[in-house]
Amino acid sequence: MISVTIIGSGNVAQHLVSAFAKSDLVEIVQVFSRQKVTSIPAIEPSKIVSEYTDLKLVDLFIIAVSDDAIAAVSSQIPFANMLVAHTSGGVAMGVLDSKHRKAVFYPLQTFTKNKPIVFSEIPICLETQHQSDYQILETVAISISQKVFSINSEQRKALHVSAVFVNNFVNHLYQIGNEICIENNIDFEILKPLILETSKKIETLSPKQAQTGPAKRNDNTTIESHLAFLNNENQKEIYKILTQSIQENGKKL
Amino acid sequence: MISVTIIGSGNVAQHLVSAFAKSDLVEIVQVFSRQKVTSIPAIEPSKIVSEYTDLKLVDLFIIAVSDDAIAAVSSQIPFANMLVAHTSGGVAMGVLDSKHRKAVFYPLQTFTKNKPIVFSEIPICLETQHQSDYQILETVAISISQKVFSINSEQRKALHVSAVFVNNFVNHLYQIGNEICIENNIDFEILKPLILETSKKIETLSPKQAQTGPAKRNDNTTIESHLAFLNNENQKEIYKILTQSIQENGKKL
Repeated sequence: MISVTIIGSGNVAQHLVSAFAKSDLVEIVQVFSRQKVTSIPAIEPSKIVSEYTDLKLVDLFIIAVSDDAIAAVSSQIPFANMLVAHTSGGVAMGVLDSKHRKAVFYPLQTFTKNKPIVFSEIPICLETQHQSDYQILETVAISISQKVFSINSEQRKALHVSAVFVNNFVNHLYQIGNEICIENNIDFEILKPLILETSKKIETLSPKQAQTGPAKRNDNTTIESHLAFLNNENQKEIYKILTQSIQENGKKL
Repeated sequence: MISVTIIGSGNVAQHLVSAFAKSDLVEIVQVFSRQKVTSIPAIEPSKIVSEYTDLKLVDLFIIAVSDDAIAAVSSQIPFANMLVAHTSGGVAMGVLDSKHRKAVFYPLQTFTKNKPIVFSEIPICLETQHQSDYQILETVAISISQKVFSINSEQRKALHVSAVFVNNFVNHLYQIGNEICIENNIDFEILKPLILETSKKIETLSPKQAQTGPAKRNDNTTIESHLAFLNNENQKEIYKILTQSIQENGKKL
């Protein structure tokens, strides 16, 4: 068994605890919660600690806290030469305290509190400072996911930027669609099958092959009529820049 | 039985033919194909015609052709006072020839050739010039879909604009994510579970509730580092405008 302690009690931390609880290879020794959370699903309350001095020695510490707290938290672990991984896509491995053997354990998914996640389908991106630590991290990752990738810091940054486009920005476009529906007294439910199919389509087609719509067709009559319809300047700007981007892209064919 | 003829042999036409073939309430009398297509799945070749003079009288003509051909095609139907519906989200009902009883039969989905569609889950938006024609159109729609909505032309325009945001523009963001991956030698497969989960998340949360990421958190350090990372001016512009839009939106809370 590999002994692991999770530092943090937010969404990612809780989903990791639940996933490891089902693993035969990993034992969760403790969960550290600054907020003195007393109950976390799938872990005995006695294993939840809120003082760094209460932490026990383990094979791996996984830090699942907000990006700007990672450095400080890693320096507070009261041992040296520990294998310590953070879980952030947006933070370099180097911010971890130099007294540790540094690593990254980045599950690339959007986590929602109380919404169950099939962890086995979540890609986990791994990086270690020392090659000799990679195997232990990989064993821990494979125990909860079938999709484990070795990703260096530069690649992880690229992935994180990509994730902002395909997750954060995509969700914002859903919101704009929702706002247009509300303004026109239309049930947003009508658009949900389209939203789901759009995301499923790229399982079999590349996004470039899957592209449709007035911009792709250079259908300027429809584009002009849509711009005339939109009365929100911000939505108009977004419509223009994305239409232009699709059209420029089409020329690159 | 309601007798229906489909005019057109593209994606939407073929998916409609396949869906009606399974219906007990609708009989496909003919399929009209300008391109003289000789074989369409789920229809006997003898029922495929390519001359307007070969069209028979039916209860409903459904025109599933490209937007700019709808008006001309509707005027070529060699009968008057027919119930004629087009299937476009982006075209007003009024473009249909005035000799007919006008209608719209708009299935709101993205259709891909050779990719099967569960039609029962596709919302169909209906509009008729004459109230007395609504019921026949509704019967035809209900025979293939559980989600049938009465949507007037103004609402349909709003829906179509929304669909551009949540389908065409979203797919373009997928493509940008894909490009960033390719440039950095990363398998785009890593992002697909995130893409799927992002679309599923809004089944239970509103897009506003589901919003996460550096823009939402006003995490300017991450935003600046992402902008510094992007070397494509177009991607940078899109990143900026969508980040700003999310931030402005957050202030409206």
